[in-house]
Amino acid sequence: MISGRCAACKYLRRRCPSDCIFSPYFPSNNPQRFACVHRIYGASNVAKMLQQLPAHLRAEAANSLYYEAQSRTQDPVYGCVGVISLLHQQIHSVESQLAKTEAEIAVLNSLAQEPAQIQEHEVEAAFNNFLLEQDIIASRRFGHSTYISSNFI
Amino acid sequence: MISGRCAACKYLRRRCPSDCIFSPYFPSNNPQRFACVHRIYGASNVAKMLQQLPAHLRAEAANSLYYEAQSRTQDPVYGCVGVISLLHQQIHSVESQLAKTEAEIAVLNSLAQEPAQIQEHEVEAAFNNFLLEQDIIASRRFGHSTYISSNFI
Repeated sequence: MISGRCAACKYLRRRCPSDCIFSPYFPSNNPQRFACVHRIYGASNVAKMLQQLPAHLRAEAANSLYYEAQSRTQDPVYGCVGVISLLHQQIHSVESQLAKTEAEIAVLNSLAQEPAQIQEHEVEAAFNNFLLEQDIIASRRFGHSTYISSNFI
Repeated sequence: MISGRCAACKYLRRRCPSDCIFSPYFPSNNPQRFACVHRIYGASNVAKMLQQLPAHLRAEAANSLYYEAQSRTQDPVYGCVGVISLLHQQIHSVESQLAKTEAEIAVLNSLAQEPAQIQEHEVEAAFNNFLLEQDIIASRRFGHSTYISSNFI
Protein backbone atom coordinates (compact mmCIF):
# COMPACT_ATOMS: atom_id res chain seq x y z
CA MET A 1 0.00 0.00 0.00
CA ILE A 2 1.40 3.39 -0.99
CA SER A 3 1.10 6.07 1.69
CA GLY A 4 1.08 9.78 0.85
CA ARG A 5 2.44 10.68 4.28
CA CYS A 6 5.84 12.38 4.64
CA ALA A 7 8.65 10.82 6.72
CA ALA A 8 7.76 12.98 9.76
CA CYS A 9 4.05 12.10 9.80
CA LYS A 10 4.89 8.42 9.26
CA TYR A 11 7.35 8.54 12.15
CA LEU A 12 4.86 10.36 14.38
CA ARG A 13 2.04 8.00 13.23
CA ARG A 14 -0.32 10.76 12.25
CA ARG A 15 -2.24 11.98 9.21
CA CYS A 16 -0.13 14.18 6.89
CA PRO A 17 -2.10 17.39 6.24
CA SER A 18 -1.92 19.07 2.84
CA ASP A 19 -0.07 22.03 4.41
CA CYS A 20 2.28 19.84 6.50
CA ILE A 21 5.35 21.89 7.54
CA PHE A 22 7.64 18.84 7.25
CA SER A 23 6.35 17.32 4.02
CA PRO A 24 8.45 19.30 1.45
CA TYR A 25 11.70 18.77 3.37
CA PHE A 26 11.32 15.28 4.80
CA PRO A 27 10.15 12.99 2.01
CA SER A 28 8.94 9.50 2.87
CA ASN A 29 11.78 7.83 0.95
CA ASN A 30 14.33 9.13 3.51
CA PRO A 31 12.97 8.23 6.96
CA GLN A 32 16.45 8.42 8.52
CA ARG A 33 16.68 12.16 7.76
CA PHE A 34 13.65 12.98 9.92
CA ALA A 35 14.59 10.46 12.62
CA CYS A 36 17.98 12.18 12.95
CA VAL A 37 16.69 15.76 13.43
CA HIS A 38 13.87 14.48 15.67
CA ARG A 39 16.39 12.75 17.95
CA ILE A 40 18.45 15.94 18.41
CA TYR A 41 15.91 18.79 18.29
CA GLY A 42 12.51 17.12 18.70
CA ALA A 43 9.79 17.40 16.03
CA SER A 44 8.02 20.36 17.64
CA ASN A 45 11.22 22.45 17.79
CA VAL A 46 12.01 21.67 14.14
CA ALA A 47 8.45 22.61 13.15
CA LYS A 48 8.72 25.84 15.14
CA MET A 49 12.06 26.79 13.55
CA LEU A 50 10.78 26.11 10.03
CA GLN A 51 7.51 27.98 10.62
CA GLN A 52 9.39 31.09 11.76
CA LEU A 53 11.14 31.33 8.38
CA PRO A 54 9.81 32.52 5.01
CA ALA A 55 8.90 29.51 2.82
CA HIS A 56 11.77 30.02 0.34
CA LEU A 57 14.41 29.62 3.10
CA ARG A 58 12.95 26.52 4.76
CA ALA A 59 14.64 23.95 2.52
CA GLU A 60 18.08 25.39 3.34
CA ALA A 61 17.21 25.53 7.04
CA ALA A 62 16.04 21.88 6.98
CA ASN A 63 19.32 20.92 5.27
CA SER A 64 21.48 22.74 7.81
CA LEU A 65 19.47 21.32 10.74
CA TYR A 66 20.00 17.84 9.30
CA TYR A 67 23.74 18.46 8.86
CA GLU A 68 24.05 19.68 12.47
CA ALA A 69 21.97 16.78 13.80
CA GLN A 70 24.14 14.31 11.88
CA SER A 71 27.30 15.95 13.28
CA ARG A 72 25.90 15.77 16.82
CA THR A 73 25.01 12.09 16.33
CA GLN A 74 28.51 11.30 15.05
CA ASP A 75 30.25 13.43 17.69
CA PRO A 76 27.98 13.79 20.75
CA VAL A 77 30.52 15.99 22.57
CA TYR A 78 31.49 18.58 19.95
CA GLY A 79 29.00 18.17 17.08
CA CYS A 80 29.48 20.80 14.37
CA VAL A 81 31.84 22.76 16.62
CA GLY A 82 34.38 19.94 16.17
CA VAL A 83 34.31 20.57 12.42
CA ILE A 84 34.78 24.32 13.02
CA SER A 85 37.81 23.71 15.26
CA LEU A 86 39.40 21.44 12.63
CA LEU A 87 38.86 24.06 9.92
CA HIS A 88 40.45 26.76 12.11
CA GLN A 89 43.50 24.52 12.58
CA GLN A 90 43.64 23.93 8.82
CA ILE A 91 43.50 27.69 8.10
CA HIS A 92 46.23 28.31 10.67
CA SER A 93 48.45 25.70 9.04
CA VAL A 94 47.94 27.04 5.49
CA GLU A 95 48.47 30.63 6.65
CA SER A 96 51.78 29.62 8.25
CA GLN A 97 52.86 27.87 5.04
CA LEU A 98 51.91 30.99 3.07
CA ALA A 99 53.88 33.27 5.38
CA LYS A 100 56.96 31.03 4.99
CA THR A 101 56.61 30.94 1.22
CA GLU A 102 56.28 34.74 1.08
CA ALA A 103 59.42 35.04 3.20
CA GLU A 104 61.23 32.74 0.77
CA ILE A 105 60.20 34.99 -2.13
CA ALA A 106 61.42 38.09 -0.31
CA VAL A 107 64.82 36.45 0.19
CA LEU A 108 64.98 35.25 -3.43
CA ASN A 109 64.10 38.75 -4.63
CA SER A 110 66.77 40.37 -2.50
CA LEU A 111 69.24 37.78 -3.82
CA ALA A 112 68.28 38.56 -7.41
CA GLN A 113 68.83 42.29 -6.82
CA GLU A 114 72.20 42.12 -5.08
CA PRO A 115 73.73 38.73 -5.83
CA ALA A 116 77.35 39.79 -5.40
CA GLN A 117 76.95 41.61 -2.11
CA ILE A 118 75.23 38.89 -0.15
CA GLN A 119 77.24 36.01 1.24
CA GLU A 120 75.64 32.59 1.66
CA HIS A 121 75.59 32.65 5.47
CA GLU A 122 74.03 36.12 5.44
CA VAL A 123 71.19 34.87 3.22
CA GLU A 124 70.56 31.98 5.55
CA ALA A 125 70.51 34.27 8.59
CA ALA A 126 68.19 36.75 6.82
CA PHE A 127 65.83 33.97 5.79
CA ASN A 128 65.71 32.49 9.30
CA ASN A 129 64.97 35.93 10.76
CA PHE A 130 62.24 36.44 8.23
CA LEU A 131 60.68 33.05 9.10
CA LEU A 132 60.83 33.90 12.79
CA GLU A 133 59.11 37.23 12.21
CA GLN A 134 56.44 35.64 10.03
CA ASP A 135 55.81 32.96 12.67
CA ILE A 136 55.36 35.63 15.30
CA ILE A 137 52.97 37.56 13.06
CA ALA A 138 51.06 34.40 12.12
CA SER A 139 50.69 33.29 15.74
CA ARG A 140 49.43 36.78 16.65
CA ARG A 141 46.92 36.82 13.79
CA PHE A 142 45.76 33.21 13.98
CA GLY A 143 45.76 32.25 17.63
CA HIS A 144 42.70 30.09 16.92
CA SER A 145 43.00 27.78 19.91
CA THR A 146 41.29 30.45 22.01
CA TYR A 147 38.59 31.19 19.42
CA ILE A 148 35.99 28.60 20.36
CA SER A 149 36.52 28.77 24.10
CA SER A 150 36.29 32.57 24.14
CA ASN A 151 33.00 32.30 22.27
CA PHE A 152 31.63 29.90 24.86
CA ILE A 153 32.20 32.14 27.84
CA MET B 1 16.69 35.99 48.85
CA ILE B 2 19.50 33.80 47.51
CA SER B 3 18.33 30.72 45.65
CA GLY B 4 20.51 27.63 45.26
CA ARG B 5 18.75 26.61 42.05
CA CYS B 6 20.65 26.46 38.74
CA ALA B 7 19.58 28.52 35.72
CA ALA B 8 17.66 25.57 34.22
CA CYS B 9 15.66 24.79 37.36
CA LYS B 10 14.91 28.49 37.85
CA TYR B 11 13.73 28.75 34.23
CA LEU B 12 11.62 25.60 34.57
CA ARG B 13 10.33 26.74 37.99
CA ARG B 14 11.22 23.57 39.79
CA ARG B 15 13.30 22.39 42.73
CA CYS B 16 17.01 21.88 41.85
CA PRO B 17 18.00 18.38 43.04
CA SER B 18 21.51 17.78 44.38
CA ASP B 19 22.27 15.57 41.36
CA CYS B 20 20.73 18.01 38.83
CA ILE B 21 22.08 17.25 35.33
CA PHE B 22 22.04 20.96 34.38
CA SER B 23 23.42 22.49 37.55
CA PRO B 24 27.21 22.23 36.85
CA TYR B 25 26.90 23.60 33.29
CA PHE B 26 24.13 26.19 33.62
CA PRO B 27 24.90 28.37 36.66
CA SER B 28 22.23 30.70 37.95
CA ASN B 29 24.30 33.80 37.14
CA ASN B 30 23.92 33.15 33.39
CA PRO B 31 20.22 32.55 32.75
CA GLN B 32 20.57 33.48 29.06
CA ARG B 33 22.81 30.46 28.43
CA PHE B 34 20.12 27.99 29.44
CA ALA B 35 17.32 29.97 27.77
CA CYS B 36 19.26 29.80 24.49
CA VAL B 37 19.80 26.01 24.41
CA HIS B 38 16.26 25.43 25.69
CA ARG B 39 14.81 27.48 22.83
CA ILE B 40 16.67 25.45 20.19
CA TYR B 41 16.84 21.91 21.63
CA GLY B 42 14.35 21.86 24.51
CA ALA B 43 15.40 21.10 28.09
CA SER B 44 14.60 17.38 27.91
CA ASN B 45 16.73 16.85 24.79
CA VAL B 46 19.66 18.70 26.38
CA ALA B 47 19.29 16.61 29.57
CA LYS B 48 19.17 13.41 27.47
CA MET B 49 22.29 14.38 25.47
CA LEU B 50 24.26 15.23 28.63
CA GLN B 51 23.13 12.08 30.46
CA GLN B 52 24.35 9.88 27.62
CA LEU B 53 27.91 11.18 28.05
CA PRO B 54 30.50 10.36 30.72
CA ALA B 55 30.59 13.12 33.36
CA HIS B 56 34.03 14.46 32.35
CA LEU B 57 32.82 15.27 28.80
CA ARG B 58 29.56 17.00 29.74
CA ALA B 59 31.03 20.48 30.24
CA GLU B 60 32.49 20.46 26.70
CA ALA B 61 29.21 19.13 25.30
CA ALA B 62 27.22 21.86 27.11
CA ASN B 63 29.62 24.46 25.67
CA SER B 64 29.29 23.17 22.12
CA LEU B 65 25.48 22.91 22.41
CA TYR B 66 25.41 26.53 23.59
CA TYR B 67 27.65 27.63 20.73
CA GLU B 68 25.42 25.87 18.18
CA ALA B 69 22.24 27.22 19.77
CA GLN B 70 23.68 30.75 19.67
CA SER B 71 24.63 30.31 16.00
CA ARG B 72 21.13 29.05 15.18
CA THR B 73 19.59 32.03 17.02
CA GLN B 74 21.80 34.48 15.12
CA ASP B 75 21.35 32.73 11.77
CA PRO B 76 18.09 30.75 11.79
CA VAL B 77 18.65 29.46 8.24
CA TYR B 78 22.24 28.19 8.33
CA GLY B 79 23.26 28.16 12.01
CA CYS B 80 26.74 26.70 12.53
CA VAL B 81 26.78 25.45 8.94
CA GLY B 82 27.08 29.08 7.82
CA VAL B 83 30.31 29.37 9.81
CA ILE B 84 31.60 26.13 8.24
CA SER B 85 30.87 27.41 4.72
CA LEU B 86 32.72 30.66 5.43
CA LEU B 87 35.73 28.78 6.76
CA HIS B 88 35.79 26.55 3.67
CA GLN B 89 35.81 29.67 1.48
CA GLN B 90 38.64 31.10 3.58
CA ILE B 91 40.70 27.90 3.22
CA HIS B 92 40.06 27.89 -0.53
CA SER B 93 41.26 31.48 -0.80
CA VAL B 94 44.44 30.91 1.25
CA GLU B 95 45.22 27.68 -0.64
CA SER B 96 44.94 29.58 -3.93
CA GLN B 97 47.25 32.30 -2.63
CA LEU B 98 49.72 29.64 -1.52
CA ALA B 99 49.65 27.90 -4.90
CA LYS B 100 50.35 31.23 -6.65
CA THR B 101 53.19 32.05 -4.28
CA GLU B 102 54.73 28.62 -4.83
CA ALA B 103 54.48 29.16 -8.58
CA GLU B 104 56.25 32.50 -8.19
CA ILE B 105 59.09 30.77 -6.31
CA ALA B 106 59.43 28.14 -9.02
CA VAL B 107 59.79 30.89 -11.64
CA LEU B 108 62.28 32.85 -9.51
CA ASN B 109 64.31 29.69 -8.96
CA SER B 110 64.42 28.87 -12.66
CA LEU B 111 65.43 32.50 -13.34
CA ALA B 112 68.23 32.27 -10.80
CA GLN B 113 69.55 29.08 -12.43
CA GLU B 114 69.47 30.20 -16.09
CA PRO B 115 69.30 34.01 -16.14
CA ALA B 116 70.94 34.43 -19.52
CA GLN B 117 68.88 31.90 -21.42
CA ILE B 118 65.42 33.09 -20.44
CA GLN B 119 63.98 36.09 -22.18
CA GLU B 120 61.58 38.35 -20.34
CA HIS B 121 58.50 37.40 -22.37
CA GLU B 122 59.28 33.70 -21.88
CA VAL B 123 59.35 34.16 -18.10
CA GLU B 124 56.01 35.91 -18.20
CA ALA B 125 54.49 33.14 -20.31
CA ALA B 126 55.96 30.43 -18.06
CA PHE B 127 54.64 32.16 -14.95
CA ASN B 128 51.16 32.58 -16.40
CA ASN B 129 51.10 28.89 -17.40
CA PHE B 130 52.19 27.93 -13.92
CA LEU B 131 49.42 30.06 -12.35
CA LEU B 132 46.87 28.50 -14.68
CA GLU B 133 47.99 24.98 -13.74
CA GLN B 134 47.95 25.84 -10.03
CA ASP B 135 44.46 27.29 -10.34
CA ILE B 136 43.25 24.13 -12.03
CA ILE B 137 44.87 21.97 -9.31
CA ALA B 138 43.49 24.19 -6.53
CA SER B 139 39.96 24.14 -7.95
CA ARG B 140 40.15 20.31 -8.23
CA ARG B 141 41.40 19.94 -4.64
CA PHE B 142 39.28 22.61 -2.99
CA GLY B 143 35.95 22.61 -4.78
CA HIS B 144 34.31 23.43 -1.45
CA SER B 145 31.13 24.93 -2.80
CA THR B 146 29.81 21.37 -3.28
CA TYR B 147 31.03 20.16 0.12
CA ILE B 148 28.09 21.13 2.28
CA SER B 149 25.39 20.36 -0.27
CA SER B 150 26.81 16.90 -0.97
CA ASN B 151 26.72 16.18 2.75
CA PHE B 152 23.10 17.20 2.95
CA ILE B 153 21.86 14.76 0.33
